[in-house]
Amino acid sequence: MIQTAIVGASGYSGAELVGLVARHPDARLTGVFGAGSSGSRWEDLYPGRAHLFRGEVRRFEPDRLAGLDAVFLALPADASARAARGLTGRVGRVIDLSGALRLSDAAEYRRWYGEEHPAPELLGRAVYGLPELFGDRLAGAELIACAGCYATVAQLAAAPALRLGAAVSADVHLAASSGTSGAGRKPSVALAFSEVFGDLRPYRVGRHQHCPEIAAGLSRHSGRPVRVSFVPQLAPLERGIAASATLSYDGSVSQEELVAAYREAYDAAPFVRVHEPESRLPAVRAVAGTNFCDLAPVADPAGGAIVVVGAIDNLLKGAAGQAVQVFNLAFGLPETAGLPAREAVA
Amino acid sequence: MIQTAIVGASGYSGAELVGLVARHPDARLTGVFGAGSSGSRWEDLYPGRAHLFRGEVRRFEPDRLAGLDAVFLALPADASARAARGLTGRVGRVIDLSGALRLSDAAEYRRWYGEEHPAPELLGRAVYGLPELFGDRLAGAELIACAGCYATVAQLAAAPALRLGAAVSADVHLAASSGTSGAGRKPSVALAFSEVFGDLRPYRVGRHQHCPEIAAGLSRHSGRPVRVSFVPQLAPLERGIAASATLSYDGSVSQEELVAAYREAYDAAPFVRVHEPESRLPAVRAVAGTNFCDLAPVADPAGGAIVVVGAIDNLLKGAAGQAVQVFNLAFGLPETAGLPAREAVA
Amino acid sequence: MIQTAIVGASGYSGAELVGLVARHPDARLTGVFGAGSSGSRWEDLYPGRAHLFRGEVRRFEPDRLAGLDAVFLALPADASARAARGLTGRVGRVIDLSGALRLSDAAEYRRWYGEEHPAPELLGRAVYGLPELFGDRLAGAELIACAGCYATVAQLAAAPALRLGAAVSADVHLAASSGTSGAGRKPSVALAFSEVFGDLRPYRVGRHQHCPEIAAGLSRHSGRPVRVSFVPQLAPLERGIAASATLSYDGSVSQEELVAAYREAYDAAPFVRVHEPESRLPAVRAVAGTNFCDLAPVADPAGGAIVVVGAIDNLLKGAAGQAVQVFNLAFGLPETAGLPAREAVA
Amino acid sequence: MIQTAIVGASGYSGAELVGLVARHPDARLTGVFGAGSSGSRWEDLYPGRAHLFRGEVRRFEPDRLAGLDAVFLALPADASARAARGLTGRVGRVIDLSGALRLSDAAEYRRWYGEEHPAPELLGRAVYGLPELFGDRLAGAELIACAGCYATVAQLAAAPALRLGAAVSADVHLAASSGTSGAGRKPSVALAFSEVFGDLRPYRVGRHQHCPEIAAGLSRHSGRPVRVSFVPQLAPLERGIAASATLSYDGSVSQEELVAAYREAYDAAPFVRVHEPESRLPAVRAVAGTNFCDLAPVADPAGGAIVVVGAIDNLLKGAAGQAVQVFNLAFGLPETAGLPAREAVA
Repeated sequence: MIQTAIVGASGYSGAELVGLVARHPDARLTGVFGAGSSGSRWEDLYPGRAHLFRGEVRRFEPDRLAGLDAVFLALPADASARAARGLTGRVGRVIDLSGALRLSDAAEYRRWYGEEHPAPELLGRAVYGLPELFGDRLAGAELIACAGCYATVAQLAAAPALRLGAAVSADVHLAASSGTSGAGRKPSVALAFSEVFGDLRPYRVGRHQHCPEIAAGLSRHSGRPVRVSFVPQLAPLERGIAASATLSYDGSVSQEELVAAYREAYDAAPFVRVHEPESRLPAVRAVAGTNFCDLAPVADPAGGAIVVVGAIDNLLKGAAGQAVQVFNLAFGLPETAGLPAREAVA
Repeated sequence: MIQTAIVGASGYSGAELVGLVARHPDARLTGVFGAGSSGSRWEDLYPGRAHLFRGEVRRFEPDRLAGLDAVFLALPADASARAARGLTGRVGRVIDLSGALRLSDAAEYRRWYGEEHPAPELLGRAVYGLPELFGDRLAGAELIACAGCYATVAQLAAAPALRLGAAVSADVHLAASSGTSGAGRKPSVALAFSEVFGDLRPYRVGRHQHCPEIAAGLSRHSGRPVRVSFVPQLAPLERGIAASATLSYDGSVSQEELVAAYREAYDAAPFVRVHEPESRLPAVRAVAGTNFCDLAPVADPAGGAIVVVGAIDNLLKGAAGQAVQVFNLAFGLPETAGLPAREAVA
Repeated sequence: MIQTAIVGASGYSGAELVGLVARHPDARLTGVFGAGSSGSRWEDLYPGRAHLFRGEVRRFEPDRLAGLDAVFLALPADASARAARGLTGRVGRVIDLSGALRLSDAAEYRRWYGEEHPAPELLGRAVYGLPELFGDRLAGAELIACAGCYATVAQLAAAPALRLGAAVSADVHLAASSGTSGAGRKPSVALAFSEVFGDLRPYRVGRHQHCPEIAAGLSRHSGRPVRVSFVPQLAPLERGIAASATLSYDGSVSQEELVAAYREAYDAAPFVRVHEPESRLPAVRAVAGTNFCDLAPVADPAGGAIVVVGAIDNLLKGAAGQAVQVFNLAFGLPETAGLPAREAVA
Repeated sequence: MIQTAIVGASGYSGAELVGLVARHPDARLTGVFGAGSSGSRWEDLYPGRAHLFRGEVRRFEPDRLAGLDAVFLALPADASARAARGLTGRVGRVIDLSGALRLSDAAEYRRWYGEEHPAPELLGRAVYGLPELFGDRLAGAELIACAGCYATVAQLAAAPALRLGAAVSADVHLAASSGTSGAGRKPSVALAFSEVFGDLRPYRVGRHQHCPEIAAGLSRHSGRPVRVSFVPQLAPLERGIAASATLSYDGSVSQEELVAAYREAYDAAPFVRVHEPESRLPAVRAVAGTNFCDLAPVADPAGGAIVVVGAIDNLLKGAAGQAVQVFNLAFGLPETAGLPAREAVA
């Protein structure tokens, strides 16, 4: 059994991770850690999950985790950077769910995250955790920066289209709506039920911190200099993201060719399901509670655009599920271990 | 007092219209009409509005309305076309909230609405009801096709950017989320609470019937051949639309210039509020229950795009409120009569 | 025009009151005041109501309000008690929406509110503001303690049954569900959308501070020593309360007699609508946005109980609307002035 | 492996059951059956569960199921009665989730269900499936009528209090709020998102069909003639029930004694969790997605009542989970097999 711990177990992503790791067939969850919530019983913070795990949330100190095979960090970016610094070299693998280590440049981090990076020596050392596009580098990786929630669905939606070549522009226009769990667990008037109920609320248009992550990932994957515009939106549901990636094209790609390209791109990906848009479009309820990313690419010659619709559960494929998937690959386990996967009882 | 009637008073837009017209200072609501709901008391269909209007929903027959000054049609497109045929020339003005008469071509109607137009002789005769862009033709109009809900916010969001000229592309990429009232009042598993709760559901991507309406309106207004891609999405709230219009640009327009262009374009429009995106982005709750369209234009040079965010109440500025605004202009009344307007008690 | 001010204009009840008073035909809203929110523009706190009122929230100091005809207090109970102390005798009338002055005894206040009363000399001096049961004392009252939200619907639901006499027990069993606005506007994890969504959450069972208020009101009205059990519940909606009051009975009251008793009791009450349960049961959407209290009494001989179902909008009949109704009666205005009332255009 | 089938697999309870049975360690799901949905692929009806089961919904005919070890019926009551008639004696065990066979008397069925019973010869033959109160009769039962959703939480909440004897009245006053999935999957304006959103809607007060079921169960369990009043309420969430049972008492039972009585009553019940009300009250989110029933009994001497608050997931402990629990007991399997149970990783 792989000995693991979770730091940041009281947040929504961390709590989801606790449920997954506690039941993972190859992992043992040795403890859960936090900062503000330390001293609480985890099952009191999440009574709906008390049957999955029980234990005290302990104060995180790197010493307490030394020697573990894997530590998951589900913390705010700055806290995560400091924790990663304290753990690197002392535990087998660090799997970070935050944005701390996704960018490779301290100046870029400062620009988009609005503060100095607390551990710049780690920048560029982390392997980016988005298995379907960059899975080959995960085996044995010691420091992994899991892709962000929006960044996951955006890159999976746009990547195959960008590889179609010159017929498709390298500018990607993104719009995505997220449930409120994406904003984390914290006291806030803006996130109060009375304020979110009945609202749809675009935010950080043109300046969301996932923009450079998405642009970098898509540029690397396609070999083209990709630009990204992005309209994130808070929507009145707890979990899930529905997104669309729109790329101008010259009309020379047929609907059939487009679907074929997506099917081929994700043929070996157990968590990506490509749908024909005529028969089904991705929607949040079809992926909520699973690690799937559903995609449907639409060729719209009248609109001059390829539009790819995608949906994920932001706490699973967008956070905890992806972290487990990455964990599986880092340790050479089956990619779907401990996660709901493609095959069903027929 | 202008003598009016409402046909289709049992649907959501129609019911909203009943509330507005019943309190309008210059209108008298002589009766409400329907088809399937005829014989019911209107206040039993909408008990939450029983204090606004009481009366029987009567079966619509054109004869019953002959001689009225104005008739509002809040019906499905095909029924609306037939009703308009029966009323034209027999009542002073027909104000249609449906999509029946928004397009000018029978073939285009067939393509996007999926059926033959029931009254093709009316196509091209209706004045398009979107006051902020095409208000000058409304005075005295006898047949008015009010703009659609998505089409209203999309055109108001994109129109000033398109007039910026060659620096901005004539391809408009739209994404919009709508509350469920936009889908109408009808028995449906897909619209059941148990199915919509917790869901975000893109639909009709690349083939929504508002695409040609938006493209035609923006082309006419800008004098440029505009193409439109569109991702509509059903969201778990009752009323409201949040939308974004994204247009590629060459980076030569500054944020200040952009806001200035929007402020100038809507300077005389009592229901359009232009916000600086740094200080406020449009959101549904800020417009719900009002006839306002809130807009915020964002210049995003890194993304190579101008993104304009907009929000309306789909049942007011997207339907019943706009119909009353159009009614006001058609009859030479103050544009804001009977509607919540810009000025507040200071 | 009656010169007024509102203290606590940034909370949900206060904001609702701002909208009502700003449009009241006989009142002039001279200013809005607060504590933590002072210095903000009110329309920035409530952009969806910017068309109703614009102005700065000023820091409350009693001197600033001296000489006004009426001041509304929409504050937490302790702050309200202190504000009332500062204003009494310096303004014409103080209308308090909080629980500060509803009980008559300092020991009882301590027991249910969990703290010492800050201005015990005011206890017993306030007139209780529940017009339908105790309206005769409001004319000219200088200090009014408006009934609480749950307390309003509970008393209106139970009072006529208790007057039926010995056939009906004097023990009232209450259950009520409230939207989240009842908990106020404050940063809180427990009230976050991610926590309330999909939840139903009973709270303070057997120890809610409205229990003694309800018991006292019903005892006074019926002349019987009434006891109250109460199950309040937080429900996932923004506004509205649905409640039931259950009283054991001996089966000797028929359904017809029961409805007749309720109709008679509220015959002169413009905001109470009594329904036959066979034709309509009260529901939140039928009263949301109005000052109505809908009631339906059910005689259930098999269950040995009279059950009275009621619904109100907690921010209107349960708070701001009731405050305006009370204001109207205190100043001798029509009871429905500035409020949506019984009569509709027929 | 026990060979099973599910009839009514396209409804919400049936679909939940498909997910549970498909993963049950001791069961094999040989097929899913329906009426209106036959011919559809089950995974198209429930794309969010496509990873759990795939297969065609076949038209139900008793012959097709002959010889199976167990058949679950998740149908409307009348269809269920007819199906049970066709299956009895031809399959090992019939486990019915509907109300068809819960009452023992045809006249009572007619009164509460509003129609003649289609298979009256089966009345009185079914064992009632509420394991915590009546589990001893399930071993080997061939026809089982699972308790209803409201009936489950109501009986579990009230039963131990009734056994306290004469200090507690035998009249039980129930109030319960349910998510919309309890109303089933069917096209309906009343259940549309646009209608349920923002609403709380009491219904069938005094005449809900679970009243006689609850009264009979509690009378049998307590040996006292129990009467039940009941206020069911539709609430804006998808799944879950929160309920309260209120019983008058003479004040002679202390809070400690009350909790102790509940703890003792459910000591051996793996799915009932009894909470001290001071530390935690049951809530829907704490049980959603699990088979737990959470309970907290409150002694309220001032109110003259014992109030017991309870919560369940209506589709699990209120339907499919309970059916699997009953199945386990009928076949002599561990009670928690295939269900989320009490113990967590410590």
